[in-house]
Amino acid sequence: MLPSAALFSASLRRKCSFSLRHRRRLHSVIEYPLTHPIYTIWASNTSVGKTLVSAGLSISFISSSSSSPIAKKKFIYLKPVQTGFPGDSDSRFVYTKLSEFLAYKQLPFSVFASNHFLKASVPAASAVLGNGIVDKDGNFGGGFENVMWYEERKLTGSESTESELPVSEVVCKTLYGWKEAVSPHLAAEREGAMVGDSELLDSLKRSLGNGVVGTCDNGEELEVMCVIETAGGVASPGPSGSLQCDLYRPFRLPAILVGDGRLGGISGTISAYESLKLRGYDVAAVIFEDHGLMNETPLLSYFRNRLPVLVLPSIPKDMSDDLISWFDDAQLIFTSLKEIMLSAFLKRTQRLHDMPKKACDIFWWPFTQHKLVPEENVTVIDSRCGENFAVHKFIDMLHITITNKKCRLTVRHAWISFRVSIGFLNNLMLVLVGGRRVPMLVCRRLQIELARDMGYTAARYGHVMFPENVYEPALELAELLLEGVGKGWASRVYFSDNGSTAIEIALKMAFRKFLNDNKVLVDLVNADINGRCMDLKVLALRGSYHGDTLGAMEAQAPSPYTGFLQQPWYSGRGLFLDPPTVSMYSGIWEVCLPEKMESEKRGQECVSFSSRDEIFKRSRDGTSLASLYRSFILQDLQLLSDSNGLSHIGALIIEPGKNIVQGAGGMQMIDPLYQRILVTECKSRKIPVIFDEVFTGFWRLGRETAAEMLWCQPDIACFAKLMTGGVIPLAATLASDAVFEAFTGDSKLKALLHGHSYSAHAMGCTAAVKSIKWFKDHKRNMNLISESRLLQELWDPNLVLQISLSPAVHRVVALGTLCAIELLAEGSDAGYGSTYASSLLKKLCEDGIYMRPLGNVIYLMCGPCTSPGVCLTILQKVYSRIQEFGQTE
Amino acid sequence: MLPSAALFSASLRRKCSFSLRHRRRLHSVIEYPLTHPIYTIWASNTSVGKTLVSAGLSISFISSSSSSPIAKKKFIYLKPVQTGFPGDSDSRFVYTKLSEFLAYKQLPFSVFASNHFLKASVPAASAVLGNGIVDKDGNFGGGFENVMWYEERKLTGSESTESELPVSEVVCKTLYGWKEAVSPHLAAEREGAMVGDSELLDSLKRSLGNGVVGTCDNGEELEVMCVIETAGGVASPGPSGSLQCDLYRPFRLPAILVGDGRLGGISGTISAYESLKLRGYDVAAVIFEDHGLMNETPLLSYFRNRLPVLVLPSIPKDMSDDLISWFDDAQLIFTSLKEIMLSAFLKRTQRLHDMPKKACDIFWWPFTQHKLVPEENVTVIDSRCGENFAVHKFIDMLHITITNKKCRLTVRHAWISFRVSIGFLNNLMLVLVGGRRVPMLVCRRLQIELARDMGYTAARYGHVMFPENVYEPALELAELLLEGVGKGWASRVYFSDNGSTAIEIALKMAFRKFLNDNKVLVDLVNADINGRCMDLKVLALRGSYHGDTLGAMEAQAPSPYTGFLQQPWYSGRGLFLDPPTVSMYSGIWEVCLPEKMESEKRGQECVSFSSRDEIFKRSRDGTSLASLYRSFILQDLQLLSDSNGLSHIGALIIEPGKNIVQGAGGMQMIDPLYQRILVTECKSRKIPVIFDEVFTGFWRLGRETAAEMLWCQPDIACFAKLMTGGVIPLAATLASDAVFEAFTGDSKLKALLHGHSYSAHAMGCTAAVKSIKWFKDHKRNMNLISESRLLQELWDPNLVLQISLSPAVHRVVALGTLCAIELLAEGSDAGYGSTYASSLLKKLCEDGIYMRPLGNVIYLMCGPCTSPGVCLTILQKVYSRIQEFGQTE
Repeated sequence: MLPSAALFSASLRRKCSFSLRHRRRLHSVIEYPLTHPIYTIWASNTSVGKTLVSAGLSISFISSSSSSPIAKKKFIYLKPVQTGFPGDSDSRFVYTKLSEFLAYKQLPFSVFASNHFLKASVPAASAVLGNGIVDKDGNFGGGFENVMWYEERKLTGSESTESELPVSEVVCKTLYGWKEAVSPHLAAEREGAMVGDSELLDSLKRSLGNGVVGTCDNGEELEVMCVIETAGGVASPGPSGSLQCDLYRPFRLPAILVGDGRLGGISGTISAYESLKLRGYDVAAVIFEDHGLMNETPLLSYFRNRLPVLVLPSIPKDMSDDLISWFDDAQLIFTSLKEIMLSAFLKRTQRLHDMPKKACDIFWWPFTQHKLVPEENVTVIDSRCGENFAVHKFIDMLHITITNKKCRLTVRHAWISFRVSIGFLNNLMLVLVGGRRVPMLVCRRLQIELARDMGYTAARYGHVMFPENVYEPALELAELLLEGVGKGWASRVYFSDNGSTAIEIALKMAFRKFLNDNKVLVDLVNADINGRCMDLKVLALRGSYHGDTLGAMEAQAPSPYTGFLQQPWYSGRGLFLDPPTVSMYSGIWEVCLPEKMESEKRGQECVSFSSRDEIFKRSRDGTSLASLYRSFILQDLQLLSDSNGLSHIGALIIEPGKNIVQGAGGMQMIDPLYQRILVTECKSRKIPVIFDEVFTGFWRLGRETAAEMLWCQPDIACFAKLMTGGVIPLAATLASDAVFEAFTGDSKLKALLHGHSYSAHAMGCTAAVKSIKWFKDHKRNMNLISESRLLQELWDPNLVLQISLSPAVHRVVALGTLCAIELLAEGSDAGYGSTYASSLLKKLCEDGIYMRPLGNVIYLMCGPCTSPGVCLTILQKVYSRIQEFGQTE
Repeated sequence: MLPSAALFSASLRRKCSFSLRHRRRLHSVIEYPLTHPIYTIWASNTSVGKTLVSAGLSISFISSSSSSPIAKKKFIYLKPVQTGFPGDSDSRFVYTKLSEFLAYKQLPFSVFASNHFLKASVPAASAVLGNGIVDKDGNFGGGFENVMWYEERKLTGSESTESELPVSEVVCKTLYGWKEAVSPHLAAEREGAMVGDSELLDSLKRSLGNGVVGTCDNGEELEVMCVIETAGGVASPGPSGSLQCDLYRPFRLPAILVGDGRLGGISGTISAYESLKLRGYDVAAVIFEDHGLMNETPLLSYFRNRLPVLVLPSIPKDMSDDLISWFDDAQLIFTSLKEIMLSAFLKRTQRLHDMPKKACDIFWWPFTQHKLVPEENVTVIDSRCGENFAVHKFIDMLHITITNKKCRLTVRHAWISFRVSIGFLNNLMLVLVGGRRVPMLVCRRLQIELARDMGYTAARYGHVMFPENVYEPALELAELLLEGVGKGWASRVYFSDNGSTAIEIALKMAFRKFLNDNKVLVDLVNADINGRCMDLKVLALRGSYHGDTLGAMEAQAPSPYTGFLQQPWYSGRGLFLDPPTVSMYSGIWEVCLPEKMESEKRGQECVSFSSRDEIFKRSRDGTSLASLYRSFILQDLQLLSDSNGLSHIGALIIEPGKNIVQGAGGMQMIDPLYQRILVTECKSRKIPVIFDEVFTGFWRLGRETAAEMLWCQPDIACFAKLMTGGVIPLAATLASDAVFEAFTGDSKLKALLHGHSYSAHAMGCTAAVKSIKWFKDHKRNMNLISESRLLQELWDPNLVLQISLSPAVHRVVALGTLCAIELLAEGSDAGYGSTYASSLLKKLCEDGIYMRPLGNVIYLMCGPCTSPGVCLTILQKVYSRIQEFGQTE
């Protein structure tokens, strides 16, 4: 099949201008169009006939009668990676076989067919173009020649007239070719022609994009089908060494799997299918060549109720056979396959089209006023790939009609799949839910590994009961937690399902410990068996949030979220203190004291810092500010014990380093000195200390546990959210031995009688083990410095300083993965209800940064593994828009 | 390699007596011993050299120097399934090659080697034994001949004396052979020799068991290694058609994967590995033959940090090569492999040994008084397979020492892996946690499919944010819930993480609906912004349980679980009614009225029923018992509104059909008539009705929703537990449109402000979609009758009646998947703390039924798909033990 250079040069034509001309019309975020079916052809092994299937499909698609007399047809065949090239060229094979078959069958209409070679390694390009005609005009890139080889053929139909334009079109393309007939990663290495994954995907995206734009050119109805043929098996390496099933995953195109009809082929086909599923692909059909071994029986049994299995007739072994009669024999099978592909495509697009309305009709989203969510605001999420989501958006400018005679379904608009960076989407979400949602940053490799671990764990354990049992994932997680976030103080792990339940458990623990430590009180309780005469309160910070179940709500100060209409049972069982906060104001880190403290301040307290690190120094314990804090804390505690003899503080609960204010002001960083003094004072009074690290835990503030920043340890701490790396709910309440001992005794009734059905469920524990290890592994998390105990600065300090100096900005807090910017605003412009920032956010949206206002505060939040480079790009855009904003205001 | 019949008959010896003699000494529940490493050898395809690896391992294991001068060595090679037999016999190949190699190498010690053929299809057996010597003595089974072929050889070592006993032993065995060289399922079908999966596993278990017993015979130290070689690829069908990776899964033996060094072999090796992982196998190493394609580079990259990849030298293509020098060349690789296997084994057993102590040290189990859990009571769960758990138990009778010179680790006791039916283990768990744990019954096929779906969903979605978004699993689940358990009344789905949070959300919904419907009250609330002057109560049944977070606790009546020491904030914000219950007493279904009602009963009320179905009839609404119920309900409601003007009932919450009493009495079935009247009365007063179906939902009581039994519908209903089929936490609160409307408005603050980070997480939704569909699918759930709306009787009605007639039994309730038996007991024998049932339970334990007492009540609980046959077997044993118990008392 080696085409001679002479033959090729005859029809050589450069098409560079084509793609350049059209590229501008497509928005750069477009991933691939949903105006027509695009499938990836995968195989369970090499040499099982992928290209025959592609060719068969092209024949079947082009030969079938159109749904409309005026509809044109276009079949696009893409071979991104071709080795053994040009001796082996699958795109040329498809082009040739289609042409031969159509010539033989004499269709009534004309077909215009073409075959393109875009880039090839130097050895491969030389073989195509001849050594003398190597392109030297500067289009060199990574050892590739821009071959831009092109051949075309017009197949005149039996009923065509000379003047008639071809009714249908077949476009075959090879994107990259290497000469040696080995695995692409080897060929790329040996021929010095490497192509990175994103470069390859970009090239593929362009080819897919061109396909669509082409359909718009003359406004005619056009039926399009596109197939992308991979190389080798599903997990064969691509040119960069990435497995192809990983390489193409960002597209997550629906798949056709070419199975193996040979001995051993049942196993190979099933395993290949499972590798595709483990990467989130949807397989529409399995097709394989009959080898007389009845492989279809077990395959049909395995795939029953899931997908169709099609069997192709045996392929003639005689190399001289032109396969024309085989294609003829197999045409019915290929037509079935084509129909399956079309119908799966239409089902998918119809569903995507219907989803927003259905969601508005039957979902009840948390923290959402449904009346304020129009259907067009609903985001359809098709999938996620690492930090990117594939979402579907309705593009009005494209009005392309796809009709299928079988389904008679008309999709009058095109859907385009976007990729949106998680930071943006999550910020959007974050604000929607009152600043409490946490974006779960999962880098792509972690997602792949987690997926396999999730499958493994479900297969190994499913669900197992926890009490009095032990199994590996739960034990390993408990060990990791005690060696990590609980190191030095915790000795027990209590599992539950989410942050709110973890807090409820922590409160129960703390109260018991308190009662146990205060024998007088216990006697009091024993005297009155109901014990309702005693009022146990929790010491907490005003504006704090610990969860939405009643017990967690009771530990937060009254706010619109705790009102009678939200939870009539809420009474606010705490003594709530006003904490001092720290932010950068005009380039300087400063303490902002609550009103009462500010008025009692005698002026000598140092409330500004030369650097952020100063804030966290233990030496601040001796300052007069520390005395001021202490005196206020003691004053409040005294007031309580004076008020009535029945109220006691049974626990302190704080979020170390942070305070999410639900109302105005957004996220605040509490002065760590103040929190440390609170902890010290409580400890000296035997009041158990709870650290709510549900949000702050696992590197959110730049350290695995935010407690490190306070230089003190709790008696109890709660973890959730980032703990599982973002795939599954799980929470843990860690406790010291002294807390645990308050529950031991001879009676079961003294035990902590709290639990949920899925306590310590194996899948959650496995996900947590994987994620915790991943985040603290230098080899995987490039942001780690200082013996894995600290993340490097993710938000460029100079830029943060510049932003804080902007006249439009009131204050900035950048710590760990968080960066909060409060705009300077007054009166009704300030606060939670303000729409002050909306013009700024609209501009940011134009930059591809999607955020929603939390009053006059805007947020950025990344993941523990997000590179500082990504953060810098975003922050730069934010800075530049803030500058503009400051000028227009 | 075809052995002639003559050669074989020379050394023919029957070994039947051996296995029979020893079998009795092994307990029937033993799965496989952990006294020595047992590995399964898998391959990524046919013809990649599995048997060469087995032979190489046997050579390496036997040739290596012993850790102790007196230690014997034993290598066991098992080939459960052999096609192309006896022409191809892998066990004979291993036997032959080992013998040849040892003879060539002249080891210092003697080796005794043997090869066994157990069963073969008639054509295969004829070829082994010659047509004349077919065994006809009745040992026929399913088209197999008990071939019992045996050959042996003593290889005298260079330093051996004539009288010396062989130091080491190699046992090779083929369990089943078929003549045709095709896939086992085809051969089995064509030769009419079928073997079921469990029969094959039994045979394998016996061969493994014999291996251990053999080690005990002379008390000598023995180093044993066993390998089981599969046929074809990992997912090649076994004789029954089950894929081998599924067939052998109950053992879940650690695996060695023989990879593929050919073109396409990278993909095949990775996919095969992923298929093993998707079934919960642990792979210790990958090994493959070098074909000069550098397949190790991408494989090493893929397997980095996970497992070692070993490369074998190329195998001579010359068929006449005896491979002796190849084995010699490869010996270093095989020795590495053997060391990897030994060290992984020792790591595993050491970990299993350490787990109970570690669990006691660092876990804090829910509902558990740790002081009452000695280390030896902790169950180590290795894995789960459908309804069976593999647990590890310490068997004292076996004292076998395994030493490994490398690790110098001594395991002085043997661990045996048991399989325990889930019903038993869960009952054990159920009782441990106060009757509230729910066993999650997952049949094996469902587990396999769920595992793949979990991997797929993690790969496709990971975690995605829910508010204002839509993605397929969440939408499909919401649709399924509204068409299923919410049909006819629910229009919205609110997702959360567990039953307790679902209840908290339901209460918030109900209260808002109530306030909205009672405008006078709303004005009252508006007047006093804090609204604390109004006391909203919930109407609930005494003894009910709705969860452990504070809000859910407040909806239950005071009990030891709600005491001050457990949750000082609990106050019991309900009006708690005493409900009438229904049970079978001495063969007759009767109502048991609460004391107060009993005393006011005028005698004419009919309180017994001719059948259980009578209890659920709507016609009971007109009976005088209904009037009695109604008058008591009205009386209680009247009392509340008389007490003070501030208390109002804002919601009714019931578990339809059921009431779990935490204290004495165990599970009770509430008279459905009473519950229906309650619902009717509340609805007429515009009090929103909540059905807590967390426990009863999804077929627990024989119907998808227990609400059906009450002939009435709630305004709000909660689901969790069985919803996901038992792999992952997820809960849903369903609501009517009227409830939803109470939250719509122009302000976000009117929305339901409750949520958790993982709301509607994709993996939970996917698991729920799969499970809900599975349970109601006739093809999968054989228990479904009556158009999928009802489960057949799982507990044989006659046997239930017989049990209720037993003098030892007070009452029985059998409904759906539940069967509760209360023993007749008086005084201190009755109630939660009683140990009355302990002698009965000890006897049941001897029958393999592990239960713990919940006072004088014992429980049986199966899954929606458990066959009535399994239930019958268990119930029969229970009945017979209860009869004995009645006689001894």
